[in-house]
Amino acid sequence: MKHLLNIGDLTRDEIVGLMDEADRFREALEGREVKKLPTLRGRTIFTLFYENSTRTRASFETAGKWMSADVINISASSSSVKKGESLKDTALTLSSIGADAIVMRHPSSGATQLIADWVAPGGNGPSVINAGDGSHQHPTQALLDAVTMRQRLGNIEGRKVLIVGDCLHSRVVRSNVDLLSKLGAEIVLVAPPTLLPWGVDTWPVRTSVDFDAEIADADVIMMLRVQQERMNGGFFPSHREYATLFGLSKARAAMMKDDAIIMHPGPMLRGMEINHAVADYDETAVLQQVSNGVHVRMAVLFTLLAAGN
Amino acid sequence: MKHLLNIGDLTRDEIVGLMDEADRFREALEGREVKKLPTLRGRTIFTLFYENSTRTRASFETAGKWMSADVINISASSSSVKKGESLKDTALTLSSIGADAIVMRHPSSGATQLIADWVAPGGNGPSVINAGDGSHQHPTQALLDAVTMRQRLGNIEGRKVLIVGDCLHSRVVRSNVDLLSKLGAEIVLVAPPTLLPWGVDTWPVRTSVDFDAEIADADVIMMLRVQQERMNGGFFPSHREYATLFGLSKARAAMMKDDAIIMHPGPMLRGMEINHAVADYDETAVLQQVSNGVHVRMAVLFTLLAAGN
Amino acid sequence: MKHLLNIGDLTRDEIVGLMDEADRFREALEGREVKKLPTLRGRTIFTLFYENSTRTRASFETAGKWMSADVINISASSSSVKKGESLKDTALTLSSIGADAIVMRHPSSGATQLIADWVAPGGNGPSVINAGDGSHQHPTQALLDAVTMRQRLGNIEGRKVLIVGDCLHSRVVRSNVDLLSKLGAEIVLVAPPTLLPWGVDTWPVRTSVDFDAEIADADVIMMLRVQQERMNGGFFPSHREYATLFGLSKARAAMMKDDAIIMHPGPMLRGMEINHAVADYDETAVLQQVSNGVHVRMAVLFTLLAAGN
Repeated sequence: MKHLLNIGDLTRDEIVGLMDEADRFREALEGREVKKLPTLRGRTIFTLFYENSTRTRASFETAGKWMSADVINISASSSSVKKGESLKDTALTLSSIGADAIVMRHPSSGATQLIADWVAPGGNGPSVINAGDGSHQHPTQALLDAVTMRQRLGNIEGRKVLIVGDCLHSRVVRSNVDLLSKLGAEIVLVAPPTLLPWGVDTWPVRTSVDFDAEIADADVIMMLRVQQERMNGGFFPSHREYATLFGLSKARAAMMKDDAIIMHPGPMLRGMEINHAVADYDETAVLQQVSNGVHVRMAVLFTLLAAGN
Repeated sequence: MKHLLNIGDLTRDEIVGLMDEADRFREALEGREVKKLPTLRGRTIFTLFYENSTRTRASFETAGKWMSADVINISASSSSVKKGESLKDTALTLSSIGADAIVMRHPSSGATQLIADWVAPGGNGPSVINAGDGSHQHPTQALLDAVTMRQRLGNIEGRKVLIVGDCLHSRVVRSNVDLLSKLGAEIVLVAPPTLLPWGVDTWPVRTSVDFDAEIADADVIMMLRVQQERMNGGFFPSHREYATLFGLSKARAAMMKDDAIIMHPGPMLRGMEINHAVADYDETAVLQQVSNGVHVRMAVLFTLLAAGN
Repeated sequence: MKHLLNIGDLTRDEIVGLMDEADRFREALEGREVKKLPTLRGRTIFTLFYENSTRTRASFETAGKWMSADVINISASSSSVKKGESLKDTALTLSSIGADAIVMRHPSSGATQLIADWVAPGGNGPSVINAGDGSHQHPTQALLDAVTMRQRLGNIEGRKVLIVGDCLHSRVVRSNVDLLSKLGAEIVLVAPPTLLPWGVDTWPVRTSVDFDAEIADADVIMMLRVQQERMNGGFFPSHREYATLFGLSKARAAMMKDDAIIMHPGPMLRGMEINHAVADYDETAVLQQVSNGVHVRMAVLFTLLAAGN
């Protein structure tokens, strides 16, 4: 594996391999005071973020540092981007400085694929890891979601997963649908029709506007962040209507099966897509997702930079 | 000791213990070319700053790195805070990523106490270090001030310490009063009545508006930064009047005792609260304070993360 | 060598010494998976950037980390500068925190010399490295340019170097003229008269407005970035006229000698000072310059902080 750009590029075995590797890192580190492996000593990882982020950037930085890599952060707001440099030249510059991996977040769908083609023509060059590109893909998010589901539920095959909310703009949805369908889950997108992706009828999912009708036999309720910046786009009439129809209220949470779990990619807007108290329920796996995120990113960096090379 | 939130939480012995530890780090490192101890290898420290800072953030980062910790910086301006995430969820996220310590600066008084309650309920979770919360506390500043006084004067008990300027908004004042009173210093706040804290009559201090009357027998003159952002708040009539009444001019500095010292938490506004030339006098201990700051932060991180755990 | 502020301060031998050192670092690291030398372990390097930068800051950070130094980044946008602290006090603070080196970029010409005088009076204190000060100097850029020329051409003496574009505002020009003249190159500045530096008649260069007349026998064509922020300053009539007269078009590139090379300090504005396709020609050494930049910065940091100390 050279890059991680798109869950759709991975076979089922590659996905499960990364999930298993993440579990091994978790087992190796959990409860240890000294979280430091020599695995990537002398490797140089650049994070190149064109959008704000706390958890994803910090999670990758932590993953790299725990494996002794050098991690260098570039945020677009203080970079040469402001001087008019092209994305291509920025990427080639980081490659020439000596990047072994470029972890990139960008507002444009497909940007990381372009970068990979530029910096590693013929597979020769740094690895590129998609940390979220527009509304396209966020593969490490899907991997950490799957790792969390497997930990909580034991298996993913045959499980019913609701993905609820703004599926149109969400890169989390696309990566999760790609991954969960390969692992045999039943996926239902619950969203107002205005917030369903174009061409969703060709996806391996069902869609529904009736959250209540779907929740009772679901194994996973994955809530999506309401992207406030889209609130005025006319995608739905009001905050209140959205929260009523597509929010995870206490009443709705009470309809869940006993062993069902609640997930959220974060950052959560409590009171909007998820009730304040529900966010802290034992059924809610949000912090376990965050924790698994570090192990998944370790697994990805290790697989791309060290395993079998 | 689990957290460092408030000097008021510490006993006299704990304070002196941290000061002694800081001195030991200074002795261990001073003059050494290779400033690197293995003490905190494999520990992960997040700095989470919701206000701008050079010296405090860099000082903590240096302290952590000199003890071989992984230090990861989060500044609010590029974080999920912009997406509407609550402070609680940001803190829990850093904790779940794997923080051993969260060093936090926040504009709201009491914010770091909230964080500590959230991330370490029952004492189980990362240590939280208050790097300045609103106008409340800045405990490592008080500790480095005390270390500096002890180095310069030999002892603190019975010494007369003037704290001069905007005592109302200053977190430095509160932490210093808590600390210096426990160590037996005589504290005089010199400020216009509009810039004295509410309830100051219950504090173990005297107050004065007459800088000249207090300076001659003082051992320490601690000048506070004039917070320019408050200049238009009607707290004092003009820059010039403030500088005249509460600035440390050459004439005033000439009234000081021979062995008295001048301190300032920085950043200084030369020409405002302190005369340009006076800021460079041998009596001025500002850079020694900065240097001690690193050793104090090493002592705090060591005590919270490694000592006796 | 205590600081690196100005190529003009260096003897020919010192310049060649740094270039040779850079080549040695390149040879030691190139092709190695584990890029990590223990050379500067326990040394603390601050980068202090008052202007945006990707490549220069990242290049210094990489250089430091590959030699195991602790590198701490300060960007002016999140620093105490906003609270009114003077440049002097910021520099003295970093020195007191424990800087072994301060790598600084500043919009004012001469700022790094001031810093050096402040933090290391009598040569006692941290080393200061000029990473670009106003339109004055950018010494590591000149060094990496020279290293690249020597790699590509075998030697520099007697070579004809065109420097094309906005020579008035460029710190790259000044450092390159100082360096290349000491190594015996023939330098021609090609620029509109409005964009030639004042006093250029006293420099060891020729000037020309006729790019076509100079290009055929040149060994190096060094294009400068058009500083967009100056576009409205009346320095030239229009983008199109500038690109026509001083841009490196395909037609112009076709006039070059067979073994001549194209250089650019970056960030490039493709389509403005350099044709989009020409920027990717084999003759274009831009990415080799970037790569050499890391080795040059390693050489500089090593020479200032470790060699013979």
